[in-house]
Amino acid sequence: LRLLVIGGTAAGLSAAARARRLDPALEIVVLEKGEVVSFGACGLPYFVEGRVREPEQLTVYTPEYFRRERNITVRAGAEVVSIAHGRREVQLRSGERVHYDRLVISTGARPVEPAARPNEFNLHTLADGKRLRQFLTEQQPRHATVIGAGYIGLEAATALRAHGVQVLLCDRNPHILHRDDPELTAAVCKHLEHFHVELRLGCTDGMPDTDELVIRAQGLRPNVELAADGGIERGRTGAIRVDERMETNLPGVFAAGDCAETMHLVTGRPTWIPLGTTANKMGRVAGANAAGARERFPGIVGTAIVSVCGLAVGVTGLSAAQARAAGLQPVSARITSVDRPRYFFGKPITVELVADRTTSRLLGASIWGEEGVAGRLNVVATALHSRMRLEDFAGLDLCYAPPFAPVWDPVLVAAQQLQKSL
Amino acid sequence: LRLLVIGGTAAGLSAAARARRLDPALEIVVLEKGEVVSFGACGLPYFVEGRVREPEQLTVYTPEYFRRERNITVRAGAEVVSIAHGRREVQLRSGERVHYDRLVISTGARPVEPAARPNEFNLHTLADGKRLRQFLTEQQPRHATVIGAGYIGLEAATALRAHGVQVLLCDRNPHILHRDDPELTAAVCKHLEHFHVELRLGCTDGMPDTDELVIRAQGLRPNVELAADGGIERGRTGAIRVDERMETNLPGVFAAGDCAETMHLVTGRPTWIPLGTTANKMGRVAGANAAGARERFPGIVGTAIVSVCGLAVGVTGLSAAQARAAGLQPVSARITSVDRPRYFFGKPITVELVADRTTSRLLGASIWGEEGVAGRLNVVATALHSRMRLEDFAGLDLCYAPPFAPVWDPVLVAAQQLQKSL
Repeated sequence: LRLLVIGGTAAGLSAAARARRLDPALEIVVLEKGEVVSFGACGLPYFVEGRVREPEQLTVYTPEYFRRERNITVRAGAEVVSIAHGRREVQLRSGERVHYDRLVISTGARPVEPAARPNEFNLHTLADGKRLRQFLTEQQPRHATVIGAGYIGLEAATALRAHGVQVLLCDRNPHILHRDDPELTAAVCKHLEHFHVELRLGCTDGMPDTDELVIRAQGLRPNVELAADGGIERGRTGAIRVDERMETNLPGVFAAGDCAETMHLVTGRPTWIPLGTTANKMGRVAGANAAGARERFPGIVGTAIVSVCGLAVGVTGLSAAQARAAGLQPVSARITSVDRPRYFFGKPITVELVADRTTSRLLGASIWGEEGVAGRLNVVATALHSRMRLEDFAGLDLCYAPPFAPVWDPVLVAAQQLQKSL
Repeated sequence: LRLLVIGGTAAGLSAAARARRLDPALEIVVLEKGEVVSFGACGLPYFVEGRVREPEQLTVYTPEYFRRERNITVRAGAEVVSIAHGRREVQLRSGERVHYDRLVISTGARPVEPAARPNEFNLHTLADGKRLRQFLTEQQPRHATVIGAGYIGLEAATALRAHGVQVLLCDRNPHILHRDDPELTAAVCKHLEHFHVELRLGCTDGMPDTDELVIRAQGLRPNVELAADGGIERGRTGAIRVDERMETNLPGVFAAGDCAETMHLVTGRPTWIPLGTTANKMGRVAGANAAGARERFPGIVGTAIVSVCGLAVGVTGLSAAQARAAGLQPVSARITSVDRPRYFFGKPITVELVADRTTSRLLGASIWGEEGVAGRLNVVATALHSRMRLEDFAGLDLCYAPPFAPVWDPVLVAAQQLQKSL
């Protein structure tokens, strides 16, 4: 029995490794069209910045590792051009046909606006990162335009500032992180301006650019064409539709990672938020089920975090505007407190919580500050998974000691504030 | 209508402040037997260490503040010696009688073994802290014995090491933090020995001491005598028994803070774990209900964290041994991972998770490492509040970006490991 995996990054390799663990006898082949496998794209901005020195640090495993340690065949430079599910086989660019019994599609995503000119860059592949770092070293640009104020754009702006490059950050969207959350946008903009990043949001009259350096970070789109041509259905988001087991409409064909959609557990609707951590989780479940297990990936709550010039900015669940758009009746409250007691050098941290007026169920949060953001964001994310009500959230037994938190944790202060609106 | 509060620290002042917010017309009087109110005892070790320079930094509010800003009368040096609930009045040491309509008892706790000699110290009151810091400055002791390996003992040992004092830490109990958790104890002991703290746990043959300096941190006992003499019942833990509204057996008489017990939401049994954060929460609910509201404090999950010579050590819920003792069937798994990706200077973090074999419900965790412990501990605490099953916990959508976490968060790695045992 052969499991074939298309795509050798986060989801694909997670699927392969998990399938191997559950079935030592399965034949497992991973086909990666690029030359690099097991590449941690999320580290790219830090490679560009220079904090990560060597590109090899971003590739976790080699094909040799998979062959030797896991008995998994990983073929780089093997691009699949078609899927013929009737015959249970795929065809490669070379013309070679490869049979499968089970198939995992993890073809990932690609930049909406690919870099086209020598001074234009995406930040998606390891080659992108290497080329940009070389450009920075050799050309020593003094000005750059970053187009797109999502995670990649914000991280790219941060990396460029670390090189002393003047940065103009612009986006057609009036919000950062594509999240309709005015206070979050205002806070991040203020912080960026403090770091001399010039901002133009809601910039509809043609993107400004510079002759020196342009980073195109205008978002991603899922790589679904191969799957669609093979008869695999897409969902409302445009990404591949899968059930909780990561199975597509074709039996025995699974999809995972940035090419697939998943359930948003707060809205109860399919969503497409391509992130490495979700890709790994989906891949793990796809691999388990492809190996004959029955596991499920119920979905996500939309948790994400980004470091913007030293400011940690995290979101989970829905903003008030997103909740309204989803037909809910949100109330929200925002407080600024400290991550630790003031006598212990506490630094400001802002928490905005959103809950549903009707059910008092917690719906989401935005949190920003220099320190202590990630853990608090995860507390809200955990509460969202359990559909926790605000009253219960406000009583959480969170840890307290001066080096770690004030006696009233900021998320609890925000919850108390929000309770007044219910 | 007069609300009388006995005790002017965490619980008492939270109660008074909350009652005022809900009822602007209520007369509110707080009687504190000591000279200092609103004192943050949890900061004492850092005052002794010197990181907190002035004692005033540990007192959040003054009686003047309460009078001026909250219209609350706070009387320091007013010791209540008896409660006559039939007449709804208390008597002070001075003989004065004070009437009440509602009463909140927040008499706190006291050290089991009070310091008796000039070179012996507790670390409970601000006076304790001042006396110890003066002793350290004037006597320049070179050796100290810390008796008790709970939070206070561990923090005291850390503070003394920062002064260059040689420390012997001993406890009759074979475990640190009074938690039957052998791996946690081993990890903390190893770390302490690395910092040249000599350890003697399970030390039953009489405590060693030194002529130079002795810290008595042998735990606390609740101050319940006043309440008991007034006809207020105690629970199985020895602390004052209260319901979810913080009301005692006497109608209109509430208790909150270190003198009262509360429900352990994992065992479903009353427990007594005196901590500042719990005291504040209980006080808030007691104050609300004393002012006529109907609020509840359902209980705690036993979350606590301590910094031991730079190692963050956190626990929540039950250890495997504690779970067995509570009649559950625990399985546990322990993993050591990194708090961030290795290429982003990740540091080791160890997570031990405990779940119930029968129901697969999560029961507790111990987490230790230099960084990233508090947030992950709080994630487990939140899951314990929702009685989350291990399967759901393992799928949590926690945040990921290289400055904050590896792509598989350590708590999820631990959950995956534990799933193999179920």
